[in-house]
Amino acid sequence: MDQQQLIIQMIIAEWQKQNARVDKLLETLSDDQWAADTAPKRNSGLYLIGHLAAVSDGMLPLLGFGPKLYPALESIFLTSPDKSGLAQTSLSALKTYWSAINAALTKHMAAMTPADWLTRHTAVSEADFAKEPHRNKLNIVINRTNHQSYHLGQLVYLK
Amino acid sequence: MDQQQLIIQMIIAEWQKQNARVDKLLETLSDDQWAADTAPKRNSGLYLIGHLAAVSDGMLPLLGFGPKLYPALESIFLTSPDKSGLAQTSLSALKTYWSAINAALTKHMAAMTPADWLTRHTAVSEADFAKEPHRNKLNIVINRTNHQSYHLGQLVYLK
Repeated sequence: MDQQQLIIQMIIAEWQKQNARVDKLLETLSDDQWAADTAPKRNSGLYLIGHLAAVSDGMLPLLGFGPKLYPALESIFLTSPDKSGLAQTSLSALKTYWSAINAALTKHMAAMTPADWLTRHTAVSEADFAKEPHRNKLNIVINRTNHQSYHLGQLVYLK
Repeated sequence: MDQQQLIIQMIIAEWQKQNARVDKLLETLSDDQWAADTAPKRNSGLYLIGHLAAVSDGMLPLLGFGPKLYPALESIFLTSPDKSGLAQTSLSALKTYWSAINAALTKHMAAMTPADWLTRHTAVSEADFAKEPHRNKLNIVINRTNHQSYHLGQLVYLK
């Protein structure tokens, strides 16, 4: 393996590690724990897992892997805050979405070459990308991994 | 810039971004806010900023940059939990430590070549590293960036 491939694998491994930590919480916390707020007046576990699923779903088009699997998540978990009065999504539905989104991401990521990872993500124009080559697909993974870690720090407060 | 350099810069940029977010909280939250717990019965802001400083200080020897600047932080903020009864460290002292540690890390990181980043970190043996080349210095940065994001998710609850 060359060095560039090694670094890309390290980045993907960190993404998978944070996903596995979310999976572990999904397996071990009760429905009541997920329904609770992570701290007084803060986002609930249900909102945060929906939020993480919505963000990961958005990676599919951003990385050029295809359309979102569950576009309805966006209005509930991205553009609206928790307790917005939008229809409740059950934990069991969110678990299904989360697994399906991650399975799709994992499948597509495995087929990427090192060169593919450094192509532009779909939210940046070709002109901007020519000036800012760091706005590539791999950087989306770096950024989203940290986003997931950020909310994991809050989700552990459900324990 | 070659592709490997670009990827390394992306990783370092994410590290700097999370540091800047901590800096922003240090500038904007009051001493009382920092002294509070991030949630009922959870770590205080003071403990978490001490913890982050201690972890970053530990990166100096791990990355081969030299000894820790503040080795006394370890027993207070790494091997002991919050409210352990160990001597209190003031917020102003922690701010000084945090800045000095990050200045040292930034200086040394800027002098690293791409090849340097892929050498082993000092906590892995040469024999193990030969089998597991991902246990390199760059991976320490990836991992510590996510660790910082995790605790940032908790620190924002001080707001």
